[in-house]
Amino acid sequence: MAKQERAIRTRNALVESAAALFDRDGFEVASLATISARAGVSSGALHFHFPSKAALADAVVAAAGERLVRITREREALPLQTVIDASHELVQCLRSDAVLRAGFDLSAAPERARTARDLRRQWREWVESLVLRSEQAGLLAPDVAARDVAAAVVAVAAGHEALGHQDPSWLERAPLTRFWAFVLPRVVGAARVGLFVASGDPEAEPAPAPVAETGAVPGTGAAPETGAVPGARTATAPEPAPGPGVAAEARP
Amino acid sequence: MAKQERAIRTRNALVESAAALFDRDGFEVASLATISARAGVSSGALHFHFPSKAALADAVVAAAGERLVRITREREALPLQTVIDASHELVQCLRSDAVLRAGFDLSAAPERARTARDLRRQWREWVESLVLRSEQAGLLAPDVAARDVAAAVVAVAAGHEALGHQDPSWLERAPLTRFWAFVLPRVVGAARVGLFVASGDPEAEPAPAPVAETGAVPGTGAAPETGAVPGARTATAPEPAPGPGVAAEARP
Repeated sequence: MAKQERAIRTRNALVESAAALFDRDGFEVASLATISARAGVSSGALHFHFPSKAALADAVVAAAGERLVRITREREALPLQTVIDASHELVQCLRSDAVLRAGFDLSAAPERARTARDLRRQWREWVESLVLRSEQAGLLAPDVAARDVAAAVVAVAAGHEALGHQDPSWLERAPLTRFWAFVLPRVVGAARVGLFVASGDPEAEPAPAPVAETGAVPGTGAAPETGAVPGARTATAPEPAPGPGVAAEARP
Repeated sequence: MAKQERAIRTRNALVESAAALFDRDGFEVASLATISARAGVSSGALHFHFPSKAALADAVVAAAGERLVRITREREALPLQTVIDASHELVQCLRSDAVLRAGFDLSAAPERARTARDLRRQWREWVESLVLRSEQAGLLAPDVAARDVAAAVVAVAAGHEALGHQDPSWLERAPLTRFWAFVLPRVVGAARVGLFVASGDPEAEPAPAPVAETGAVPGTGAAPETGAVPGARTATAPEPAPGPGVAAEARP
């Protein structure tokens, strides 16, 4: 294995390990010794790549930002359907990907993590731009404002994320599908509800999964080692999407 | 001052101080020495009242629970208007009251705080019961399900709370008012929107403010002493309620 390739693998393993421990124990409590041990590298190697815990936090947020860019990519769909699809993908990824989860947490607590990048803002601005495009295309109901739709979507996604910390069922596909089925008639008008799939487009390609650079630290949410909260924050097998029937139910 | 009264004051000062420091620094980082110093009591007095930091966390969650009970009290209003009013009051109180904020945080992170009471569940069950009563009274639109309305309200309130950690403008009255104005036509049907005030009932009595037992630790969110994030999580003067005009705007 080339030297450079090995360095990239080591760095990625450290980022995954730091994310899993920040996510499980919090930024302040997670120790550099545990992070390097979990990544299977020496503490010297850790310090070679990251001079401080704050630098590790920055790297976790940057990696989460790259995943958010994949989630919010353009799709071959109506702009609002792209928002629906991405909202499902974001919530699914928050359930299964410790890097994304720790990155959102770190970037939401600037006073603690000293990191500059703002993932929530990145997500919010993307949602706003797509909803605005829907409005400009005449695809929103005439008596709703694009910014109110965007604010509701951003708040609901943040709410599912926050509630999912304690009760992972909020991060399943069904609750967000019910939200979209509930809100779509108001957003687009009853006549256009049939254009949209509340459960997310089942034909949409899932975003390419982040490539695990080492087998040591899987990208899925760290299996709880404390045993304190069984099931909480653990990745579970995705349930089958309820499919377009859910959107159809919402037709008045 | 009677001995018992002095003990109650000391205990309350410790709970307020612990809440302010848990809120600012996190449960793990906040130290018992800082908590007792900020409360203006000796560390001996702290240990007399609370054998451990976990016992302090329990007391903060219990105090927050009492405030939540005040917020979710019965009012002379339609059940759904009571939910609207209480959602505004909860978000306002989360902005200004470190005990409520720390209590919600602690009770949302069971693996860290080891506290049994679940404030989010208490809030969610209350919302569900009131929305169900609205449905039974025939006051929901015929094609919406009570549980979907309740889930959206709970998720949106949690989202405003989570987003407010970073950007306090989410905890102002206006964003939640816009959410209610946006969603009410879908929830109750266009014809009944005029029965409700999206900004919260301006005639409703505010919940009695928690009595500050000492002048040492005001119940308002601790003014940031680090200076790291000016304005974040700091109580600001409430803006005037937009009033019923906002609800009227939403009439189709």
